[in-house]
Amino acid sequence: MSQPLKIALAGLGTVGGGVAKLLLSRKEELSARAGRALELVAVGARDRTKPRAVDLSSLTWFGDAVALASCDADVVIELIGGEEGPARRLVEAALRAGRHVVTANKALLAHHGLELAQIAERQNVSLRFEAAVAGGIPIVKALRESLIAYGINAVRGILNGTCNYILTQMEASGKSFAEVLREAQSLGYAEADPSLDIGGGDTAHKLALLSALAFGVAPRLGQIHTEGIAHITPDDIRFAREFGFRIKLLGMARQTANGLDQRVQPAMVRAGTPLADVEGPFNAILADAGEAGPFFFEGRGAGEAPTASAVIADLVDIARGTHGAPFGRPAADLKSGAGEAPDRVSAYYLRFEVLDLPGVLAEIAGRLAEAEVSIESMIQRGRSPGEPVAIVMITHECAQSRVTDALKVIATSDKVLGSPCMIPMEAA
Amino acid sequence: MSQPLKIALAGLGTVGGGVAKLLLSRKEELSARAGRALELVAVGARDRTKPRAVDLSSLTWFGDAVALASCDADVVIELIGGEEGPARRLVEAALRAGRHVVTANKALLAHHGLELAQIAERQNVSLRFEAAVAGGIPIVKALRESLIAYGINAVRGILNGTCNYILTQMEASGKSFAEVLREAQSLGYAEADPSLDIGGGDTAHKLALLSALAFGVAPRLGQIHTEGIAHITPDDIRFAREFGFRIKLLGMARQTANGLDQRVQPAMVRAGTPLADVEGPFNAILADAGEAGPFFFEGRGAGEAPTASAVIADLVDIARGTHGAPFGRPAADLKSGAGEAPDRVSAYYLRFEVLDLPGVLAEIAGRLAEAEVSIESMIQRGRSPGEPVAIVMITHECAQSRVTDALKVIATSDKVLGSPCMIPMEAA
Repeated sequence: MSQPLKIALAGLGTVGGGVAKLLLSRKEELSARAGRALELVAVGARDRTKPRAVDLSSLTWFGDAVALASCDADVVIELIGGEEGPARRLVEAALRAGRHVVTANKALLAHHGLELAQIAERQNVSLRFEAAVAGGIPIVKALRESLIAYGINAVRGILNGTCNYILTQMEASGKSFAEVLREAQSLGYAEADPSLDIGGGDTAHKLALLSALAFGVAPRLGQIHTEGIAHITPDDIRFAREFGFRIKLLGMARQTANGLDQRVQPAMVRAGTPLADVEGPFNAILADAGEAGPFFFEGRGAGEAPTASAVIADLVDIARGTHGAPFGRPAADLKSGAGEAPDRVSAYYLRFEVLDLPGVLAEIAGRLAEAEVSIESMIQRGRSPGEPVAIVMITHECAQSRVTDALKVIATSDKVLGSPCMIPMEAA
Repeated sequence: MSQPLKIALAGLGTVGGGVAKLLLSRKEELSARAGRALELVAVGARDRTKPRAVDLSSLTWFGDAVALASCDADVVIELIGGEEGPARRLVEAALRAGRHVVTANKALLAHHGLELAQIAERQNVSLRFEAAVAGGIPIVKALRESLIAYGINAVRGILNGTCNYILTQMEASGKSFAEVLREAQSLGYAEADPSLDIGGGDTAHKLALLSALAFGVAPRLGQIHTEGIAHITPDDIRFAREFGFRIKLLGMARQTANGLDQRVQPAMVRAGTPLADVEGPFNAILADAGEAGPFFFEGRGAGEAPTASAVIADLVDIARGTHGAPFGRPAADLKSGAGEAPDRVSAYYLRFEVLDLPGVLAEIAGRLAEAEVSIESMIQRGRSPGEPVAIVMITHECAQSRVTDALKVIATSDKVLGSPCMIPMEAA
């Protein structure tokens, strides 16, 4: 048996506490799997006096987590979070000091992944981040090591458990987004400041990493068209069901004739297909691996145990001597990608809140026709002359830019209230 | 860049041809992912004159595949198949000669996996078999490297595409097992001799490997209770649907208080749960990773591209220098396990073909009561006095041995025709 692997752990929140607990309570089993002892030697967190789920008194303690980079460890685990500040300083310093790094920090890697990968490769150390995407689901490893023979045509995923929980609850209860969000916050399923989750930013962070692994592009948030779910209404969810679909916030990246299309968007997913059936806080990824066909992965995407499980998997790989470029290809080979996401071709669900007045339907239909957007089906339910009603349409396939152009004009009508809602229909 | 990885390929059937095609046509991309050139240097197959999908004329050709073990290659890929004969001789010889081995041969590993792993470890070479279980789904890697932090409580899978195709078609068409099997054979979805598939043996081979990876036991077919699907009738499938279930052939291994329970059995899977929705020739695995929760994997389980994809993943790992014990733990640590599978506790679906005569139901109910098997629900449909009819029951949870004991007695009744059918109900 080789030398023990000495581990320093920064951040003792939910996940960090879980990792510490595993390293201490399952040390023997995990060391057997790793082929050498896994030895937690130091921890870093601000408040030493805070009660912890596990006794850390025998370990070297660093009140300044960044100082962990210079302690005598082979691997530094970064579970502080945040794209800048101590997390970034620690990861950079640890890599520069020739230590392997394991992190769950998607924000950090989505913003600075290319630069950090370059440092890791120059120093010939590992930078591992299985825990940064979809919690315990081994999708980072699958894209980096398994689904490579035929390349990847498309990756689509439900990558944010908070959003999926909210959409599932809206569907089950008929309640509004705002009401379900408040309930989720009181249950601890949503943060006090939920904007990164519900605005799609967290999904975009994760998609940037999946894209890098699947398509060999450097993570670039600016290239990801990002929408959230705050505008989705109970009406949208009901109409979706009538059409045989469910609304899910998807992160999607796919090769198109015009380049790599990366988006985070609520989408209509056909009922009965794998992504449609993902409930509550679960995460899932559908990877289209060319001739090898689609592969589907589902599991818990957040929380102590799933995330700690992913951290441990990375640690054991490092202990076994597994080593490779962070994004599966040398950082120098990662393509920088085009600027904007290419225009997308899809069918679209459109919902207009209108005053029930003569001519309103003709006006909307006319504007869509002018933009060469043709309608496949329409629902207008109930009549209340002069009052607000919803008109819902599904378009034939067309370029998204045509639809958004038409919607801009329609939104200026005095018979149309608020912004029209547009949701792409995901085939299969 | 390091030295090229020299590869010898034995077996040029569907999968072997696919691997050769990939190694030649996507050499540059795959070598970039591997960090070194992947170089196919020799192939072995009996008939050199047979037309192949790819030009192999520049390679060294071995008519005797076993001789590949002594050619100048770093890795030997074994795609001959079969648990004995040239496949076994080649793999043994290649390992003994200090060459890494990649194989898709579940039969070989289910029978001789422990011994081959011992040789590989002694020689300090890799023995990799991602392609042996569930085609392109990276479940071998997931169990060996990813889902290890909290251990595995249970693994259940649809591991044989032929059986799943037949069951799906029986459900869709209402046709008998025999008729659907004939159609599957004429379409190439079932072999001329289908017994290994439909008898559950192929699933047992794969389950033995999953058990080894998940639970650290040596592969032992004798410890796997194995049933096939030939006794399933259109009636069973219809009744299953009425109860809200679908019938799937599952390979299942789980930790119980009485030891590891390993079985291959048709099972009633609740509609709407992930395994129930797996259609046609697809494969899927549900792994219960303790506190980290369930993880679900689905994809193509056989055929050229999915299987070749798994072979390539193993090759690229070897090229990158990734190395570890074949079953994720040293062979010396693999437990030999108890003899027989422990008795199982479950609810059961029971179908009796009976003559519609007074007292038949009382007799069946009486025998079950004597064995302390209690009934949760019952269906008896239609009346045709004196003619055969089906009686179907769902039991409360009880030990399987009690049910089988009662069924043995019931089968001796002159009012009961043929063997009663018993299918466990899978919760969740």
